Amino acid sequence: MKDLVQSVELGVSQRKGVKVSRPKAWLQNEVVRVGLAESLCTYVMMVFGLGSVAQVVTGQGAFGQYISINLGFGLGVAMGVHVGGKVSGAHMNAAVSITMCAFGRLAWKMLPLYVFAQLLGSFLAAGTIYGVYYEAIFDYCGGNLTVTGARATAGIFATYPAPYLSLLAGFIDQVFGTAILLLCLMALGDQKNKPAAAGSEPVAVGLLVLLIGISLGSNSGYAINPTRDIAPRVFTAIAGWGADVFRSGNGWWWVPLVAPPIGGILGAGLYKAFVEMLHPPLSEQSEGLLEEETVALEKRENNCANVCV
Amino acid sequence: MKDLVQSVELGVSQRKGVKVSRPKAWLQNEVVRVGLAESLCTYVMMVFGLGSVAQVVTGQGAFGQYISINLGFGLGVAMGVHVGGKVSGAHMNAAVSITMCAFGRLAWKMLPLYVFAQLLGSFLAAGTIYGVYYEAIFDYCGGNLTVTGARATAGIFATYPAPYLSLLAGFIDQVFGTAILLLCLMALGDQKNKPAAAGSEPVAVGLLVLLIGISLGSNSGYAINPTRDIAPRVFTAIAGWGADVFRSGNGWWWVPLVAPPIGGILGAGLYKAFVEMLHPPLSEQSEGLLEEETVALEKRENNCANVCV
Amino acid sequence: MKDLVQSVELGVSQRKGVKVSRPKAWLQNEVVRVGLAESLCTYVMMVFGLGSVAQVVTGQGAFGQYISINLGFGLGVAMGVHVGGKVSGAHMNAAVSITMCAFGRLAWKMLPLYVFAQLLGSFLAAGTIYGVYYEAIFDYCGGNLTVTGARATAGIFATYPAPYLSLLAGFIDQVFGTAILLLCLMALGDQKNKPAAAGSEPVAVGLLVLLIGISLGSNSGYAINPTRDIAPRVFTAIAGWGADVFRSGNGWWWVPLVAPPIGGILGAGLYKAFVEMLHPPLSEQSEGLLEEETVALEKRENNCANVCV
Amino acid sequence: MKDLVQSVELGVSQRKGVKVSRPKAWLQNEVVRVGLAESLCTYVMMVFGLGSVAQVVTGQGAFGQYISINLGFGLGVAMGVHVGGKVSGAHMNAAVSITMCAFGRLAWKMLPLYVFAQLLGSFLAAGTIYGVYYEAIFDYCGGNLTVTGARATAGIFATYPAPYLSLLAGFIDQVFGTAILLLCLMALGDQKNKPAAAGSEPVAVGLLVLLIGISLGSNSGYAINPTRDIAPRVFTAIAGWGADVFRSGNGWWWVPLVAPPIGGILGAGLYKAFVEMLHPPLSEQSEGLLEEETVALEKRENNCANVCV
Repeated sequence: MKDLVQSVELGVSQRKGVKVSRPKAWLQNEVVRVGLAESLCTYVMMVFGLGSVAQVVTGQGAFGQYISINLGFGLGVAMGVHVGGKVSGAHMNAAVSITMCAFGRLAWKMLPLYVFAQLLGSFLAAGTIYGVYYEAIFDYCGGNLTVTGARATAGIFATYPAPYLSLLAGFIDQVFGTAILLLCLMALGDQKNKPAAAGSEPVAVGLLVLLIGISLGSNSGYAINPTRDIAPRVFTAIAGWGADVFRSGNGWWWVPLVAPPIGGILGAGLYKAFVEMLHPPLSEQSEGLLEEETVALEKRENNCANVCV
Repeated sequence: MKDLVQSVELGVSQRKGVKVSRPKAWLQNEVVRVGLAESLCTYVMMVFGLGSVAQVVTGQGAFGQYISINLGFGLGVAMGVHVGGKVSGAHMNAAVSITMCAFGRLAWKMLPLYVFAQLLGSFLAAGTIYGVYYEAIFDYCGGNLTVTGARATAGIFATYPAPYLSLLAGFIDQVFGTAILLLCLMALGDQKNKPAAAGSEPVAVGLLVLLIGISLGSNSGYAINPTRDIAPRVFTAIAGWGADVFRSGNGWWWVPLVAPPIGGILGAGLYKAFVEMLHPPLSEQSEGLLEEETVALEKRENNCANVCV
Repeated sequence: MKDLVQSVELGVSQRKGVKVSRPKAWLQNEVVRVGLAESLCTYVMMVFGLGSVAQVVTGQGAFGQYISINLGFGLGVAMGVHVGGKVSGAHMNAAVSITMCAFGRLAWKMLPLYVFAQLLGSFLAAGTIYGVYYEAIFDYCGGNLTVTGARATAGIFATYPAPYLSLLAGFIDQVFGTAILLLCLMALGDQKNKPAAAGSEPVAVGLLVLLIGISLGSNSGYAINPTRDIAPRVFTAIAGWGADVFRSGNGWWWVPLVAPPIGGILGAGLYKAFVEMLHPPLSEQSEGLLEEETVALEKRENNCANVCV
Repeated sequence: MKDLVQSVELGVSQRKGVKVSRPKAWLQNEVVRVGLAESLCTYVMMVFGLGSVAQVVTGQGAFGQYISINLGFGLGVAMGVHVGGKVSGAHMNAAVSITMCAFGRLAWKMLPLYVFAQLLGSFLAAGTIYGVYYEAIFDYCGGNLTVTGARATAGIFATYPAPYLSLLAGFIDQVFGTAILLLCLMALGDQKNKPAAAGSEPVAVGLLVLLIGISLGSNSGYAINPTRDIAPRVFTAIAGWGADVFRSGNGWWWVPLVAPPIGGILGAGLYKAFVEMLHPPLSEQSEGLLEEETVALEKRENNCANVCV
């Protein structure tokens, strides 16, 4: 039983003020398990997301439009949650991991592991899509890998702002997009509210990302995720697009790194302050429930970080 | 137990002819909880809905089409229900709140709170989308904020009728659209019929709104919701579009205020008269069920107002 | 208990060779209940379906495309099942009702009630959409209500074949489309196979109809439903389109009447012969299950006609 | 009980090192049942998939676009799983069957039955769509059935590579597409991770195939399935398109035969190595669970091959 609970809590035992001594071998094993799962689910999500952009860009209208990209990232996130969900929580997004740490649902000491695993998965996915669409990209741009211009292809991998967008407005765009993402993620996992039905969390989170693409995507491509953006950007810098990927958009590259974690904490905090913290205490709610039900409800709550995000 | 039931019934205890005395502090707390939740879920729904229109209008075909707007409002409603569902019922629509009052599922004295909370959330969402898409809007219209014309942008925020539509036809359009909305909402929550599966209510309600957009949207933009329409309209009047937002469409602005509540009561009444009131009485149905099951079924029914809408 | 079972079986008690005497008043009440529910759900489905066509046709590309119509009918069917599901079974389609009769899931004597209720709902929906889109239709066609030509509008209400389609090919098209509809409906409700999850039947049936529109719709508009097609056709004949609605397409009107019931029986029979009748007998399956579970499973099966279609 | 378990295990009893003697008659019956179900579900999936391509190609933009094809195959797979799911597992894809064999979830001796049944269903579906769209195809291409050119129609039935694609890149494309399909299928059925909710497996698998079409389809039409591709190709060779269906694309036809099984084993192996094999052993997990729950969990795992794919 101990092992199960520990694996579920992912090192958040300090949240409860409990010190549990674990065998070191088990811990290392746990790090490997969580790291591999987080890398793999990020990889899967990114392959589907970047693949949908590659297809729309190189297909020139014959293989999908903007809504295909929304579906590619949305359903890609859903599949990622299926792949990594119960093992690592399938954050696939450093802003999510940081927010979970800030609200005590993930131990800060796990953060580097999550971010590294996400960067690795994201980078490998960029490489994979580059490989799979290599001939399509070269056929489309005539071998001229550019960040701007009529046949620009850097946007397949990383996000770039619209021509009209100032850095400040772009920063606000990324803060806000990530805030609404985390606000809704908190709601989807709040067992005292109207959460996603058990088992349907992956699709619910996918629909949320689809929705953000449909509503908040045109300003700067809705990165709302540092690890989704920087790893493919570095890949393109190496693979032939050069330093322009950092220069373009008035030096846009740092915005999807810095803004999303701020937005994530703001959004999750807003939900906590306006809804979650105002729920009547469990003890009041559970009067009249059998003892076991209360225990089950409490357990369900503890699993929340893992189940919902 | 008492507290739980009270919080679920949201002041409808008079429906049962029962007078429950509550501590006043608890009541105030309840008002804050419900008000904040209703504001927040309306805000979330409106941000996604208005955001999708802003993106389609300013994106000029490159960032989604009409169906994106249908998805934006449809899935936006689904997310709103997740955010406010168990606390306030997530009406997000004064026509829904009024209909719930008319059929005894919400106390009339709660109505001002709901309407105010919805107006607040809706107004703030309009402001947010104005802020997030500020540069996009100004780039699109060249700084000329107009209600009509080739580069009109007022339609991002409030609804305006098609050029061919008379006020009378528009009024009927809004009555009918809201009637079918409430008729189906009643069905989705009718536990003796084929309701939305437990936990899938948010998505079911979202698909309903998506469907109304696909089927009944082209005449006048399917406001079917007074609070969704008037708050952003007032915002645009203040923010630079001026009094034209009230003059345009032959003084269209009052139609989405007056018609939807009438339609809502008609539609919900139709469902009650044709289906709900004809269900065999529970006492007959429950012969053969264990006593507990009957109790559970009755409880489920009581929760209906909260769960389904 | 008796009343519940009777209401669920909808007169199919003869299937079990049991004669149950019922009070006559109850029976009349039952006829009213089932008839009203079947009319109302057909009305809802048709309003959404025809509304989506009206919007696409009169919107001239600005308010949805062909896929909107697929969604309109698909999700419209889902909402219809929510509205009538537990009371009448929500057939909304005479071909479904006839097939249910042919396979003993509905008493033949109930068939006239179902068909009449469906025709009524379908006719009223055509009238409603005509009313709601009256000004849009007249603006689009300049007041000239025609069945063919560049600004034809009869296709908003009834189906017409593509110019290249012969009557024979159209007949096959309608037989096949309805066959695959009923084949899949049988699978969605087969509790010994992989049926739609409890509670998700409405959406599953809706996705099936969406799918038929996407795959088998371009030849002749996928009526696959006599009552969906003839009632709006009669309405248009009366409302101003004239006798052309019967002459057009080489006298197409009778094909959606005659072909779908044949297809329905073929498709359902195919599923029964290839899958359902080959399931191992329940007695073998239930060894090892508790007695109650067997009873529950048997009950679930009996409800099938009602639940799945 | 024995019969049920055997029918569920589909001949994988050797996996457990158990030799079960069965009556021969039962075995033959089982072969017929599984074969018919696998044929029928493949037929259903292919009818919807090919039908959607036929409609888009011959409809010339008026009856759907590329995304309709993605939905046609995606939802078609979902319906196929409903039709064959519990009986044969509804592989509908030789690459899936081979991978299941390689990982001990299907007996190798069942493989020929599965492949034959799939080929039969796929071939009959090609014939059906040819029949249903016969007049549409001839109207579109003027009776000139070609594999390439402006009015080519062979692509309705089998896949052909984009002009820019080399055989090597196409081979990689098909290996990778099938790898990601099987990787995600394993995740969707992994009961110790975050699997598709019970009953929602058909839709989850359908969304996965939709997603692959949206992200990995433009290079060569995402066959990712030998039996889906070769049977319609042979049909077209016979039906009038001639030997060009094998010559075209630099002799492309063998790639969708050879690459997918390799990809399937790679992808499923990757998931097993990175996630499934690292799950803590069940015995550790189940401490604290009641004995029955452990048994139920084990049973659930055994059913996995059947349930998830």
